[in-house]
This record gives sequence, C-alpha cells and structure tokens, in this order.
Amino acid sequence: MAEEVVYRKILSFLEEDAPFWDTTTDILIPKGVAVRARVVAKQRCVVACLDDVSYFLKRLGLEVKQLARDGDTVEEGAAVLEVTGSARVVLGVERTLLNILMHCSGIATEVRKLVELVRRVNSRVRVAATRKTLPGLRYFEKKAVAIGGGDTHRLSLSDAILIKDNHIRIVGSVEEAVKIAKASASFVHKVEVEVSTPEDAVKAAESGADIIMLDNMKPSEVARVAEELRKRGLRERVLLEVSGGITPDNILEYAKLDVDVISCGYITISSRAVDMSLDVVEVIRK
Amino acid sequence: MAEEVVYRKILSFLEEDAPFWDTTTDILIPKGVAVRARVVAKQRCVVACLDDVSYFLKRLGLEVKQLARDGDTVEEGAAVLEVTGSARVVLGVERTLLNILMHCSGIATEVRKLVELVRRVNSRVRVAATRKTLPGLRYFEKKAVAIGGGDTHRLSLSDAILIKDNHIRIVGSVEEAVKIAKASASFVHKVEVEVSTPEDAVKAAESGADIIMLDNMKPSEVARVAEELRKRGLRERVLLEVSGGITPDNILEYAKLDVDVISCGYITISSRAVDMSLDVVEVIRK
Amino acid sequence: MAEEVVYRKILSFLEEDAPFWDTTTDILIPKGVAVRARVVAKQRCVVACLDDVSYFLKRLGLEVKQLARDGDTVEEGAAVLEVTGSARVVLGVERTLLNILMHCSGIATEVRKLVELVRRVNSRVRVAATRKTLPGLRYFEKKAVAIGGGDTHRLSLSDAILIKDNHIRIVGSVEEAVKIAKASASFVHKVEVEVSTPEDAVKAAESGADIIMLDNMKPSEVARVAEELRKRGLRERVLLEVSGGITPDNILEYAKLDVDVISCGYITISSRAVDMSLDVVEVIRK
Amino acid sequence: MAEEVVYRKILSFLEEDAPFWDTTTDILIPKGVAVRARVVAKQRCVVACLDDVSYFLKRLGLEVKQLARDGDTVEEGAAVLEVTGSARVVLGVERTLLNILMHCSGIATEVRKLVELVRRVNSRVRVAATRKTLPGLRYFEKKAVAIGGGDTHRLSLSDAILIKDNHIRIVGSVEEAVKIAKASASFVHKVEVEVSTPEDAVKAAESGADIIMLDNMKPSEVARVAEELRKRGLRERVLLEVSGGITPDNILEYAKLDVDVISCGYITISSRAVDMSLDVVEVIRK
Amino acid sequence: MAEEVVYRKILSFLEEDAPFWDTTTDILIPKGVAVRARVVAKQRCVVACLDDVSYFLKRLGLEVKQLARDGDTVEEGAAVLEVTGSARVVLGVERTLLNILMHCSGIATEVRKLVELVRRVNSRVRVAATRKTLPGLRYFEKKAVAIGGGDTHRLSLSDAILIKDNHIRIVGSVEEAVKIAKASASFVHKVEVEVSTPEDAVKAAESGADIIMLDNMKPSEVARVAEELRKRGLRERVLLEVSGGITPDNILEYAKLDVDVISCGYITISSRAVDMSLDVVEVIRK
Amino acid sequence: MAEEVVYRKILSFLEEDAPFWDTTTDILIPKGVAVRARVVAKQRCVVACLDDVSYFLKRLGLEVKQLARDGDTVEEGAAVLEVTGSARVVLGVERTLLNILMHCSGIATEVRKLVELVRRVNSRVRVAATRKTLPGLRYFEKKAVAIGGGDTHRLSLSDAILIKDNHIRIVGSVEEAVKIAKASASFVHKVEVEVSTPEDAVKAAESGADIIMLDNMKPSEVARVAEELRKRGLRERVLLEVSGGITPDNILEYAKLDVDVISCGYITISSRAVDMSLDVVEVIRK
Repeated sequence: MAEEVVYRKILSFLEEDAPFWDTTTDILIPKGVAVRARVVAKQRCVVACLDDVSYFLKRLGLEVKQLARDGDTVEEGAAVLEVTGSARVVLGVERTLLNILMHCSGIATEVRKLVELVRRVNSRVRVAATRKTLPGLRYFEKKAVAIGGGDTHRLSLSDAILIKDNHIRIVGSVEEAVKIAKASASFVHKVEVEVSTPEDAVKAAESGADIIMLDNMKPSEVARVAEELRKRGLRERVLLEVSGGITPDNILEYAKLDVDVISCGYITISSRAVDMSLDVVEVIRK
Repeated sequence: MAEEVVYRKILSFLEEDAPFWDTTTDILIPKGVAVRARVVAKQRCVVACLDDVSYFLKRLGLEVKQLARDGDTVEEGAAVLEVTGSARVVLGVERTLLNILMHCSGIATEVRKLVELVRRVNSRVRVAATRKTLPGLRYFEKKAVAIGGGDTHRLSLSDAILIKDNHIRIVGSVEEAVKIAKASASFVHKVEVEVSTPEDAVKAAESGADIIMLDNMKPSEVARVAEELRKRGLRERVLLEVSGGITPDNILEYAKLDVDVISCGYITISSRAVDMSLDVVEVIRK
Repeated sequence: MAEEVVYRKILSFLEEDAPFWDTTTDILIPKGVAVRARVVAKQRCVVACLDDVSYFLKRLGLEVKQLARDGDTVEEGAAVLEVTGSARVVLGVERTLLNILMHCSGIATEVRKLVELVRRVNSRVRVAATRKTLPGLRYFEKKAVAIGGGDTHRLSLSDAILIKDNHIRIVGSVEEAVKIAKASASFVHKVEVEVSTPEDAVKAAESGADIIMLDNMKPSEVARVAEELRKRGLRERVLLEVSGGITPDNILEYAKLDVDVISCGYITISSRAVDMSLDVVEVIRK
Repeated sequence: MAEEVVYRKILSFLEEDAPFWDTTTDILIPKGVAVRARVVAKQRCVVACLDDVSYFLKRLGLEVKQLARDGDTVEEGAAVLEVTGSARVVLGVERTLLNILMHCSGIATEVRKLVELVRRVNSRVRVAATRKTLPGLRYFEKKAVAIGGGDTHRLSLSDAILIKDNHIRIVGSVEEAVKIAKASASFVHKVEVEVSTPEDAVKAAESGADIIMLDNMKPSEVARVAEELRKRGLRERVLLEVSGGITPDNILEYAKLDVDVISCGYITISSRAVDMSLDVVEVIRK
Repeated sequence: MAEEVVYRKILSFLEEDAPFWDTTTDILIPKGVAVRARVVAKQRCVVACLDDVSYFLKRLGLEVKQLARDGDTVEEGAAVLEVTGSARVVLGVERTLLNILMHCSGIATEVRKLVELVRRVNSRVRVAATRKTLPGLRYFEKKAVAIGGGDTHRLSLSDAILIKDNHIRIVGSVEEAVKIAKASASFVHKVEVEVSTPEDAVKAAESGADIIMLDNMKPSEVARVAEELRKRGLRERVLLEVSGGITPDNILEYAKLDVDVISCGYITISSRAVDMSLDVVEVIRK
Repeated sequence: MAEEVVYRKILSFLEEDAPFWDTTTDILIPKGVAVRARVVAKQRCVVACLDDVSYFLKRLGLEVKQLARDGDTVEEGAAVLEVTGSARVVLGVERTLLNILMHCSGIATEVRKLVELVRRVNSRVRVAATRKTLPGLRYFEKKAVAIGGGDTHRLSLSDAILIKDNHIRIVGSVEEAVKIAKASASFVHKVEVEVSTPEDAVKAAESGADIIMLDNMKPSEVARVAEELRKRGLRERVLLEVSGGITPDNILEYAKLDVDVISCGYITISSRAVDMSLDVVEVIRK
C-alpha cells in the first residue's frame, strides 16, 4: 500500500478516537508547548509497523527518529521511536499509535516465536497466517506476519483459489471442484483445496490442485497423506498445508512431518498485544 | 450508531476481503444455487454483535433467523444464526461475519467472566474497558463490552476529561490541571484524573475531580487512598477507578476494596476470539 | 480534531464548490501569476476558525500570515489573514474560506455578546449552545461557540445522557428514567434530564440527576424551582440549566436567577454571518 | 441529486450526531417499542426538503406520511410529516431531521417573502441566491431557494463564467476579460461580469457579456446603467443583475428598476431557521 | 478541481491497483534504492494531464521534471516526464501514471486532429465532446478535450439545460419543453434542445432556445435547417450544434456548413490510448 | 465484489454526472410520471455487466427485466434491458448506465472475437488482458474480459508476482530476481518473469519461475524459446505468455505456436464502445 494510503487509513483511526477533538489536551495544553517523547516497549518483542506509524507521525508535522527497525527484536525497556513536536499533537495521537504498534508487534512476536520453534525441526516448512484477521486491519496484520517471518497466505478472496468444504458440498466432489477451478481460474492464480480425509487429498492431487490443505487432521493422518502422495508420485507436484487447531503446544508434531506450510488462525484473531507506552521525556516551552 | 451506518462499516470490511471478487466462489458456485447455513459456536460463550451482523446480512438480501440474542450465554455447539439465500452471497460473506462475531463474542465472554467474578465479592463495583481498542473497531468492541455487562468508559477523546500523567507533567501539578479542566470543560462532561500516589489522589479530590483513577497501584495502596479520602470526607464526592495490570488473577484483590470501577485494557487489546463456524446445512437448487 | 482531519473536511467543501473546476479562473488567470490578498472584516466581530482555515490554506501551498487570533475582537476594516501565492489557488478558494470564516465568526461574535451581557449580572452562569447545529458543521460551530467564550454543551448523542420529553413519555416517569440511566450509563457520563414543571425538577434531583434542564419555563417558575431545590437541600447536588426561547432580549431575566447554565439554540441554527471579503492587494507576475 | 445520494449525505449528518450511538435512547428505550410522531411547524412557513427527509426516513425503515408538500405554506401548529416505527430510530434521528427541515424551510420562507414583495412592483424580475452558502449544504440550500420560488444562480464554480473584481484586477480590464472568456468558455456556458461603474457596465455589454452584475450600486446608479444600455441599443442583449447589500428593506427600490435579477447573499449565509418540533403522539408497545 | 482533490482521486486509482501492496516490488527492491526514470511517448502525440500526474508524484515524495507541457505535441521517442526518487515508489506507481497519461493524451491527440482538420474549412466551428465519458474519469477526459483544443460541452447534468428526445416525448412538444425550461431554469444557464427534424429546429429557435442540437442529420438536412433559420431571421439568435455519428471520415462535410459546434462522442467513449512507457535510466544506491 | 459494493461504485458515477441535480429533467418532468424504457444495442455485440447495472437500477427503485444475459451475443437492434419506473430516475441515470454497458460490452465483444479467432488454430491457448485498465474501472473491465471468455490475468499488484524489466535492472539478473521472489513470495502466489531474450527465458525457467512472459518478441523468437525449453525438459514446468503489440492482425501467428497465453493491453486501454441507446417505449401518467 502506498505510504499515503496507509497514512489515510491511520488518520481515520485517529478520527475514530476524536470525533470532535481531544477535549482534555485542548483544554490543558497551550499551543506553543512542544515535547520530546519516546515509545517504549515494556516487554521483549519483535516490533512491527514502525515504518507506517513513523510516516504517519511525520505527516502530522512531528519530527521522528526510529530507534529500531521493523522486524528487530528489542528488549524490555527499549525505546523504539522518538517523536518531537507539538505537545497537543503528540498527546492527541498517543493512544492511536500505541494501539497499532502494540497490536502489530504482538502478532510479529508470536509469529517469530513459531517460526523459530519450527525451524529447529524443519528448515523448509513455513508458518502462515489465515484470513481470520480483524476487520479493517488486514493490511497491518498481514504485514506484521511478514515482518515476523511468516507467510501471509491469501491476502484476500481475490488473489488465489481456495476451495473449502462448503464449496465442495455444493459442487459435489473434490475432483469436480478442482477441475472447474483449473479451467476457469486465471493462469496466474494457484488452486488450493481444503480436504479432511487422505482419500480426498489424493483425489485433489490427481486432479491437478497446486496446494492441498489438510484441515483439522491429526499428525498421524497427515503423515499418512504425505506417504500416500509420495507412493503415487504426486508429492512433488503439490504443496501440503496443515491447518486447524495448531498452537505452540502442538506445532512441532506437525513441523516434523513432510509438510510445506503450517497455518494458524489464532496469530491474528486472538493476538496478544505487546505492552508499550509513550513517555514524555522533555517539555519544550517556546 | 444507526443500523445503516453499521451496515456501511461492515460492507467496507467485506470490501477489504474481496477487493475485486471472491474468485473461488464466483467460479465454482452457479448463480441459481441457494443454501441454508448456520453459524455455530464451537465453545461456550456470550454472543455479541449478532444484531449488527443480522442487519447486515438482511441488507445483502439473505433471510436471517437469530437463534440467540446479544448477551445470551450459549453452549458449545449451539447455532446462533441461520441464514438462507444465494450461496454466492453466503460463502462470500462467511469469513467477514465470522471474524466480527468471533472477536466481539470473545470480548463479551471475557467481560462477563470478570463481571461475575467481581460480583461475588462486591456488588457495587463496575468492570470497565479502556481506549486500548483495535483501530477502526471501537464501536464493535465497546458494544461487546456493554453486552458482556461491562462499563464502556470513555468512547473517545471527545466525551469526558481524563487528565493523564503526560498532561500533568506539562501542566505542572494535579491541582492546577484539575482547576483548569473544571473551569474550561463543558458542564456536561466529568473530569477524571489519573494519579499514581495517594498524595495526588487526595489533591485531585480536593481540587474537585469527579473521578480519580489509581494507576498501577497495589491493592494495599489503593486501600490507603480510600482510607485517606474517607478520613477527609472526600470519598463520597469522587468515584475511584483502579487500572493497570489487572487480570482475572488479581482482580478479586481489587474488587474487595472500596473502589467503584476496575478497568482492564487487555479485554479489548488482547482479546481472545470465540471459535465459530458457518456450516451449510442445506443446498437448494432452483 | 486533528488538523489533517479538519483539512480534509474543508477540502470536501472546496470540492462541493468546484465539482470539476473553477471555469472562470482557469480561463482568465495564467498559471504563473501570484497574488497577495487579505481577508478583511467589514464589521466589528470576534474572529473564529482562523487557525483551521490557515492550516488549510498552507496545505494548498499558500503562504499565510494570521493577522488576528481566534477569539480576538477586531474592528471594522481590519485584515485578519494575509495569503500569498498562486492567483488560481487564491481565487478558487476565496468563497469557501470566506463562507467558513463569516459563519464561524458570526457565531463567536453572538456568543461573546451574550457572555458579556450575562456576566454583568452573574459571574457564575455559563452561556451554552445546543445540538441545533447545521448538519455537517458541528465541529466548526461548537468550536466557534468555545472561541466566543460559550460552553459547547453535548458534542453529540454519544457523550452524555440527556433525557428529553419524548424519552420520558415512553419510559413513563422522570424518576424511572433517571434511575435506569444512572444504572446503565457509563460512570464517566453525566445524566441530565429535561423537565417542564417544578415538580419534575424536584423528582429529577431526588433521583440523582446530575443536571436539570428547565425547558421553556418563565423566569418566575425557574426561580421557584431553585427555591424548592434549596429548601430540600438538593440545589448543591445538581446543575440547573435553563433553555427554550432565550434571546438577547430576555436573557438577563434568567441570568439574574440562581442558575448555572443558559442555553440558546438560535446561536447556531439562526446565526448571522459577519461580512468579510478577500481583497487582492498585489499582483505578482513572474 | 439521486435520492440515494441525498440519503447518504443525510446519513453522514446522522453519523456526525452519533459517532458511536445515542447513549440516552439506547439505555432508556427498549427495542420493541414503536412510536407515531409528528413534525410540527411552530410558526407560519414555507416547508422545504420534506421529500429528501422523507426518503431518508423510509430508508431507515420508518413509515412516513407527508402532510405537506415542498413549497406549501403551512400555518403555525401544522404537522408536516408523520413517522411511525421503532422509537429508537425516531428519537435517534429527531435532531438531524429537524435541523435540516428548520434550516431549509427558513430559507424557503425568506425567499418566498422576497419574491412576493418584488412581484408587487415588477412581475419580470427574479430573486436569486448566491454562492454564500454554508459549506457542505449547497444542495439543500439551493434546493430550498428554488422551492421558495427563487433563482438558484450558479450552483458551483464549474457551471457558468462569472468574472469578478479580483479577476479583472489581474487581467487588466473588463473588455479583455470578457473577450478571453467568450473565446475560451464552452458554448454551453454563459459569461457574466461583475462591474461597479456604469462605464464598465457598458464596456461589458459591448464586449459581448451575457449577464452584467451591478455590484453594490445605488438604485440611482443602476437606473443610469440601464438607461445607458438602452440608449446604445445594448439593453436587450444582456441580463442585468443587481447585488450587494440588498435586504427586504431596500429591495423594492431595486425591483422598480429595469433589472432582470436581484441577488441576496443573506438568504443562505444568514438564514433564520423556522422553529419545528417532533412530538411523539402515540407509543406502541408490542 | 483543486490539485489536492485531483491528488486524492489519483491516489484512489493507485489503491485500486494495490489493495494491499505491490508484492513484487516490495520483495525485490530494497528500501534504500532510488532511481531516475523517464516517461517516454512511443508515438507522436499531444500530451495531456501531465500537470495533474506531476503534482501527484511530487506528493508521493518524488522529484519531478516536466519535459513537456500539457498541450504540447511531442514526437515519437520524446521523454515527457522525469522522476527521481525511491525505486519502490516509482515502480509501484508506474502503471497508474501511465494509464492516466496514455488515456488522456490519446483523447487530446484525437481532439487536436479533429480541430486541425476542421479549421482548414471553417475557422469558426468548434469541436466538442459529449457526456459519453468513462465513469469516474470525467474530470480527466474533459480536461484532455480542452487541452486538445476542443470544447468541453456540459460538464454534468447540473450545468446547463439540454432537452433531449426522451424529455420531449414526455412533455409533448419542443415548444412546450423550451417554454418550461426558459421559465424555470436559472438565468445563468443556457437552454439547448436536441431535435431531429428541420421543423423542430425552427420551433426550438422560435421558442427561444439558446442552442439547437441537430441529432443524426445528414449534411444536406443540416444545411436546410441553417437556411430555414436564416430565412426567418433566427440564425443569429441560436447556436447550431451537429451531433451523432460524426467521425474523422465525415466531419469535413459538416464543418463546411453554417454550424457553430460539431460534437463527437467517440472521442471519449472509444478513445485510443497513446503508447508510453516508463524507463529506468539510472539506479542510485545509497 | 459484493453487489452492494458495486452498487455504491455506480452511485458515485451517477454523482459525478449530477453533482447537484439533473436540471433539465427536474424542470421538465413531473414527479408522477413513469416510463417504460429499453436499452437497445445498435450493433451486434457481446453484452457485459448487465447484472451489475440491473442490480443498481433495482436499488434505485426501478423495475428491471434483463432481456439478455452477461456473455450473450445479441444482434443489432436487440433490447437487452427493460426498466419501468419514475421518469425522473430513468432519465437521470440514462447516460451513466449506457456509458457502463457500452464500455464493458465493447471490451467483451473484442475479447470474444480474439478468443474465437485464436481457438481456430489452438484450442489450448488463452487470451488475457493486462493491467492497462482505465483508472477506477478495473473491476468492470476485468469482469468484461472474463465475460468475453478471456483470462483476467493479475487483478492487481497484490495478487501474484510479476518481475518486469525495471525490477531486473535494479536486482541485477533474472536468476537473482526469481530466486528472491521464490524465497519471499507467499506459497499461494505464482512467480512470473518478463524476459526479452531466449537466454533469459531459459534462465527464468531454470530458476523456478512458474510463468515466463515473452515481451515484444517476434513469432520466430517465441518459437525458438519454446524449442529451447522443450530441449532442456523445462517446457512442462512453466507457462509461456506472449505479450506486446499483439493485435487481431498478428494474433494468429502467435496462437499457432506452443504458448499458453496471449495477452493484449489494447483490449482495455484502447477499447471501442458498443453503441447503445435508451428508448422510452411508454409514458405512464398516474
């Protein structure tokens, strides 16, 4: 997204937080006062969306120093951003910028944790997010996933084919669904199918699917699917994604298997924010 | 928010999920096919924002039956909504509606849990949310808080005065800040002050603050503040809010005290979604 | 409202005035020509929203000198703003900026007049606006009220409780309505009730309302209400607002009484613009 | 404007009045309650924009009966609109709809008064508005002018050429400005020139202007201009508009002259609202 | 349109092309890399909308040199624009800027061709566009027409009266329609009528129409209309526009006649783009 | 795109055509008059976007009968749509709906022609559009391409990787660019590379590109690339797209070769509209 587009998005967040004005600040803080303030991480984390927030703050007329880069792991107490400028502007924007950074850094931190966990047992497997993102925040959440080292997966319904259970129920069979999709989808889009049995996985591969998502299967079932595909010489032709109920507790059981992608919805839909605060470190009176 | 305004907001979420179209569904599902589908809660929860989602679905031309009401506690496996209509529309909107319901119900469920916990020891104290909401979602999150039985607290920077640490740092003292605010704020708005020491709490009450927020104080300190205020005959004149690091683990320690409000930021900024799915229960071919 | 948000609002006003372009100016004025021009008040007035307009003009690339500050009283013939830059831009924006300044200064001037009038007899009473504002202009009108020295009253339906006649008609009684509101409103919001009889005023105070609005009462009735409340020891607990048909002609009769707030709808809904013009004082050809 | 476009505009006004929700109504009024309510004019007036408001209310799900038509003169106490439906919706929209109707009817009433005044002495002259409209409300204000029987004049900078003093100052002379405009303006657009001396009026007519606006001229000067033009056989070729400081007090002096149009800025920029109220006449409990 | 309004419009085009981000560029191009690039016309053409595009690119932070001006005829291979700045920004915006310039220059080039063709036989006749413009692009297309030397004709339905066949069918007759329009249209707006027979053309002129559009008439019929009007002394009072099926192949047959305007819908609705490319001429690594 | 989203898009087009109102229609056509009207194709064509336009018209309150379906080939003179309802609404929307249908049907007709042409010599090759679409119209144009039987290619910069000449110039080599893209792109997105020499085509295939676009190559060169790839056993692993300067005149020379996709920019950027008109066939007076 162009920086100016992201800027406008964040401006609408600011507008949500002050439909008229920041009554407290407008009453208490004279126009001439400036401050220097720092955004401080109150726990170890991977910071995300600092670039976006910095651009936004500059556009509001503040001077900004980024003290960390997107993707950096910072320690508890580390300052990640320093802003200098109108106290009114800084205090008015405080909550909005913290909400974005805390949320996105929370996602990036969790993704990074999963990626590092998984890499210990399988250097080839990817950790991916899903479309279980919070409404209106997909750009930020998918970006945080990428910053954390994860795979963004589909950005929207418009950018790849993913045939799900409800589609198959209506079309009638996995083969038929894949056949139609291969014939009608643009040649630039891959075709993925969600299956819940090894049989359907094989059918999907034979029908020409590019990616097979094994939904809610136990590790042992997943292993069997991979085995079946290898046996039939189909394993090379498809990517295998496992999904459904995967958490830090059980992810290694899947990571050890012959799969290409592990996707987790909780990363975005149940994300845990990183605690951060904005501390005024200097008051500058003109 | 007028239903039509909420409708437009949700439509923009749908647009985010399909900047062009739902390629998969448009390719696989013929226009004439209709389905009956149910939204099913996959865990016990308090459902929230069903009204908003139902209105939205009706506006898209679907027939909707609400099988639960906002605020109801439903059991694992309970269907909360039934929609009938164009399969293309239902599948295209599936993820968007689930993301909203899962997120809002997650918040309402957590709030309800806290409210019930707290009531056991203090029937008078309120559980409140903060402005740590996810950008763009304040309406939905504050509404979920109210549905769960919590207090919404300030909806925005425009609807009450809340003097925070950074304001006081610039103004110079609690008393001065409260004095200015009382003089300049509209008579319809209350004046709240955040303090971190018992001394400042007393000063705030003496200066005429309507609400005092005790930030990051230990239960023992909070008790001392209340005691001080009572001693000086100030306790009746103010509401006491405690805030900062309060979780289900320590909330009862605060609830037992002579406080009016306990506020928790994690409810909204680190909310955990309720798992739900949309199941097609009937395919209707014309 | 963040300056950038106000800027976008004014830009939409400009767009309304030129859905395609300013045909006259584009045809007559060559691109290279610059002008220095002044906004001149053609009558004594309190200027308002100069800051907002100046920020807007700077964003359009003009050099701006504010020759007065928001809230200043300026004499007939005084220049309040000087802009220098592209003649095309200046002429294209002339009407839009004048319409805003003339309207807002008209409101501020009227408010200031009322405030000064009232202060002569009662230094404690406030003059307040209402929600009778022109659609789309609430930010500007409420700001002009504040600049004039008035109280903004509720900014919107979301920022305080105001129980009106129609609410009471549905709920059944003043007491019941106040009781419900006190139980359900957020602790940060005050509860105000509109009453039209002294009896209801007493009931409202007894039920715990924070503010009582005496609607369309004669001064003698208002006096009786205050007396009744004092007698019962309730006067200290509530703020008294008088409203309905109050104009410069009768405002002193109310101001003399024991009331806290006098609100007038005409200030915003029937405001009289201050006459201003934009005069080109120098043509600069490159 | 398409009804749906006007609907969206009014919806944005509603949003301005309730950035989150109508706290009072949502707390006090149960969902099941319906009301029948009437909009009543509290003074004699010409009603305007009833069609637009009615369409809007229908789109919010209310049943609407128009008891008067746009342009009707109604007596004090007359009901102009009856709405039936959800009490929550009716009360939530009350202020917004009243603000529109009061403002627009105020404009239409004033315009009608001027038109009737003028007609007594000159059946051919038109009363016109200007571009001194309140930002964001041009559609509504110009429509109210037309409903009152006035001429809308230019709707925007894009729909006719109007050469003003500042343009002439830059171009150098009236003749040169008219010449350029005639050569470059689209053949579908008329060319009007504002002049302040009889000499310039003659020059403008000789140069081919379609309309001449006599700005801030005394009646005697206007008479002289008309005489000059007649003498030179130019009167038939142009329309004469008088403008600047014209009020009900002096309008007849201009109306008696040989002019085609009298335009008044105060109609829109200093309009006086008609008093109206929304009265609940029946509470319907399900 | 104010430059900032055009900027926002183009930004929305950019958003259409990257609902999330430019995946390719974000992956391949490091943030620190800058480029110098040129927009090159790959065929002889009249360039249009360079000003608008340049302003847009500057607002995105790029340094811009215009190497041609709007309306210039440039030869095959000519560079018209040079931009220097972040490679990410340049590549992300490449397609959007080319699509605008190619489209608008295509229109301007075709208009210029027609204008020059027509001038050879009639120096007084104008070539005009119609309202057959591509949805959302009217500003750009009408501007390109003007840049090419054409007449923009009506910019929208709001800026002149044009009575068409369907209007007349409903009203009943040309005379009646013109009469109503003359009475009700603002004095600043001209009245044009579309007719398809010489008889109706005469009636329209007699009824006071300002412009008569002869729709889909053969040159011989058009000649007869002009003759009829001259005979009755009406020709001077009206402008004659011919329209319908006019192309470069037959335009001279119309241009030779006594008409004022020739309008062509194909210019905008079937425009042919000029081929242009953006070539990176230097890669600048920091 | 959800129908409601498309509806809003078309509404904005209508707004562009009537920033205030349709002056002509509002003056001439009484509110009570209804019409039955038909959209008639004035030349043989493939109709496109009828569904979208029909939904829009229904939302404006008109009764709509689709007389053809998207993708149907209709003969000259065929009616494709019949609308019945308010004459004001029908005439106000006439130009907007025609502009959409004429443009989209023009694209679909051209695509269908190419597809049928190509099929005669190669049943496997696809005809694809590019991102050379008119700003703001990508949804409609890509949909028209699909309706005509073409491949939409990338919908936006966000939905597949396409490494172009400018990317390679910055990265340094085809191999490096493909390598980075394969490592960083999401597993759901394909990687396509644009090359202009047979050598680069081979390198791209060897590096793992999914699709190779041969840009501006002569048929003989394309044949050589295919041959090279077959020789090295790489042909099966990649899709071959040819692009650049392909028109109906030379498309068969490419179609005969061993390629998978032929893409043409002119389809959308230089499309030729189908002529259509809206004819009122019945006037219904109430």
